[in-house]
Amino acid sequence: MAEEPEVDERTRELLERLHDPARVLALSDGVFAILITLLVLEIHVPELTQGHSLNQALAEIRPSLVAFVISFILAGMYWVGHRDLFALIRRTDRGLVWLNILYLLPLCLLPFAAGLLGRYDTEPVALRIYGLLLVAIAVMRVVIWLYATNRPHLLWRPLDDRQRRAGLAVNLYPGLVYLLAFLVARSAPGLSLLIYAGLPLLYFLSITVLRGSRKRNLEYADFT
Amino acid sequence: MAEEPEVDERTRELLERLHDPARVLALSDGVFAILITLLVLEIHVPELTQGHSLNQALAEIRPSLVAFVISFILAGMYWVGHRDLFALIRRTDRGLVWLNILYLLPLCLLPFAAGLLGRYDTEPVALRIYGLLLVAIAVMRVVIWLYATNRPHLLWRPLDDRQRRAGLAVNLYPGLVYLLAFLVARSAPGLSLLIYAGLPLLYFLSITVLRGSRKRNLEYADFT
Amino acid sequence: MAEEPEVDERTRELLERLHDPARVLALSDGVFAILITLLVLEIHVPELTQGHSLNQALAEIRPSLVAFVISFILAGMYWVGHRDLFALIRRTDRGLVWLNILYLLPLCLLPFAAGLLGRYDTEPVALRIYGLLLVAIAVMRVVIWLYATNRPHLLWRPLDDRQRRAGLAVNLYPGLVYLLAFLVARSAPGLSLLIYAGLPLLYFLSITVLRGSRKRNLEYADFT
Amino acid sequence: MAEEPEVDERTRELLERLHDPARVLALSDGVFAILITLLVLEIHVPELTQGHSLNQALAEIRPSLVAFVISFILAGMYWVGHRDLFALIRRTDRGLVWLNILYLLPLCLLPFAAGLLGRYDTEPVALRIYGLLLVAIAVMRVVIWLYATNRPHLLWRPLDDRQRRAGLAVNLYPGLVYLLAFLVARSAPGLSLLIYAGLPLLYFLSITVLRGSRKRNLEYADFT
Repeated sequence: MAEEPEVDERTRELLERLHDPARVLALSDGVFAILITLLVLEIHVPELTQGHSLNQALAEIRPSLVAFVISFILAGMYWVGHRDLFALIRRTDRGLVWLNILYLLPLCLLPFAAGLLGRYDTEPVALRIYGLLLVAIAVMRVVIWLYATNRPHLLWRPLDDRQRRAGLAVNLYPGLVYLLAFLVARSAPGLSLLIYAGLPLLYFLSITVLRGSRKRNLEYADFT
Repeated sequence: MAEEPEVDERTRELLERLHDPARVLALSDGVFAILITLLVLEIHVPELTQGHSLNQALAEIRPSLVAFVISFILAGMYWVGHRDLFALIRRTDRGLVWLNILYLLPLCLLPFAAGLLGRYDTEPVALRIYGLLLVAIAVMRVVIWLYATNRPHLLWRPLDDRQRRAGLAVNLYPGLVYLLAFLVARSAPGLSLLIYAGLPLLYFLSITVLRGSRKRNLEYADFT
Repeated sequence: MAEEPEVDERTRELLERLHDPARVLALSDGVFAILITLLVLEIHVPELTQGHSLNQALAEIRPSLVAFVISFILAGMYWVGHRDLFALIRRTDRGLVWLNILYLLPLCLLPFAAGLLGRYDTEPVALRIYGLLLVAIAVMRVVIWLYATNRPHLLWRPLDDRQRRAGLAVNLYPGLVYLLAFLVARSAPGLSLLIYAGLPLLYFLSITVLRGSRKRNLEYADFT
Repeated sequence: MAEEPEVDERTRELLERLHDPARVLALSDGVFAILITLLVLEIHVPELTQGHSLNQALAEIRPSLVAFVISFILAGMYWVGHRDLFALIRRTDRGLVWLNILYLLPLCLLPFAAGLLGRYDTEPVALRIYGLLLVAIAVMRVVIWLYATNRPHLLWRPLDDRQRRAGLAVNLYPGLVYLLAFLVARSAPGLSLLIYAGLPLLYFLSITVLRGSRKRNLEYADFT
């Protein structure tokens, strides 16, 4: 049957539909949207008594709010990275579809880890679980990057080695920093929290600096 | 490498995909949809005892219901404004993508603020936190408006100064009114709540009036 | 400015983008998806003790499960109706956009009403609140139907009077039945619950019967 | 009226819009996205006391985490299967639209069953309810498969008998395994849990093996 040209054409069309990234993106965007909106459920309405001041109320929810903002910005960074990666991808095979689902798995645990961090923001255990999760997310990002960029037929155009290394670095370095934050959580919980809160600032700084040099180094800037 | 025309063409295509607003809209629509649906979680099932009347049950959930309706209509207004703005936008650069995420951040806190307002609808602190959030949202709307309309290459067509000022006004004025509601919350909590509930009515009134004059003043009506 | 043909063309393009139903559908589909998924949160994990049988556990969650299934099927019917209506609609003006939001408002209260019904399935008040909500949803469906079908420029093709009446009936009748269920809730709560549970069955029966007569009566079958 | 060719053309266009799968996919992807993100709400933040170790904290949430991972992977498998099926489907008639909604119904109960399993992971009742749900989902998958593949006008191209049987097997076998897990839950709860956790592993194994033989057996591999 596969020898007939007409059938070949039809099989090719079916494969194109099976490899269409549209629903992978729909699922992923849905998960990201729900994720950043669900984070708010971890901020509990404080008990207000007569004469409670605004500052007191804000002080009470401060740890939850800090965990919310850190997790929100992190999820935003992950979504931007996902969008940048899939701008390179033309087709999704079964492997990529499943790697994407396995990437969403630790991501979906973020509201839990944020709730834990919001409630026990000085407890090493909470900080370590938060770090573990971010490391798992970073590992999955690296795996997806290597898987996709290693398969030119999945891409709009093949990347050269320099572009692949640049993209790998962008996905790998945050993971290493989170690993550090995980490792120091027991001895220096304050430093660990500072790393979680500080990395997004570094990220914003780096993309601002990178944008300045965009004209000179377009390939790299594409993946930040 | 950038000197070769073929590569230029490919780079241009990649940039088009990186600048495609589709996923920014998918994420935003997802967030708005979840937001208005999550608001219901702040209305708790009341304790009903035998012989409880409908009026009593409704009276018990009235403050939550009022906070729900106000927040729902506000979120609806923000979504309509977001849709109107992005009808002008052809491309999203990294700055716009991130400004949009930073706009979604205070928006995602709305269910928390609505829960607070539903539970303590006469407490100045609850009213002030609600107002603070609406002011933050308004600030982000103004920033996005200025950012996007200042960059003609992001738009389908450049706006003239009058259109930019009109759009700015539409985004700025509600923020000023919410700032007022925030400021009077301590001395006149009733007035503050009245402003939050009343502004949507004013909005509906204004778009009805504006529609009447649409033929004469099309550019302005576009952005309401 | 509006006199120049080129500007006219650009204004027309802007209006087309402003009237594009795509994001209205994205928001609505998002709300429906979240709605039917959130309903599960009203089914609480029962307390199981050693030796608890499957039947006992199911009996404990039975009222919640009944409220879940009724509300799920109702939401499914509303979504199918929404999809059928918007298959007729080519453009959405500001009025239609806002009527759609105001239709989503009572819809988003469904998880609350389902939770109430699941907890107090024999209390007239719970049954009346559930009925009130369904009546409000039906009213909004009728309003949207009349608004859209009255404006031929919003439609792919104008409907004739017979089609408009048929569609009106499909949207109006359920509302009248729910009004009845609301009115009898105090004197006959059992009947009221029976109506909520039975209407979807009638609906399935009617579309099966209608499908049989589809060939003879295509216009009517389109709107069921 | 139906005799005039022009009307026929318009009716055909309306039917195409009514049969367009786009919104069915939007609703389904939304439900899957929310489902896998909502699962996290069943993992409750543990009580941490000073000096609580990471291992103790993880041990406390272990049953919830196991239920989360199993349910997440299952939902992922269902979504991949849904995407594969709808890659074959060109048009959705009213029957398919409703079967899809009735398939989403047991799927939306998954967070409840996962919460039950996470809290009572050795209770036969929890294991049986979980199994019942998976059997219901499998039944609906088989029904949809038979319904769609039996109607060539709904497909991009008709399937031959071998392809239909292969797809049926892929949808049927997991259901039979879950039925087994349901039946043994009372006498051997450990085995039951093992089956729920083990099937995804078998699935991954099987698609890896199938991929190896893809070239020789393309039709079968399409539906795994």
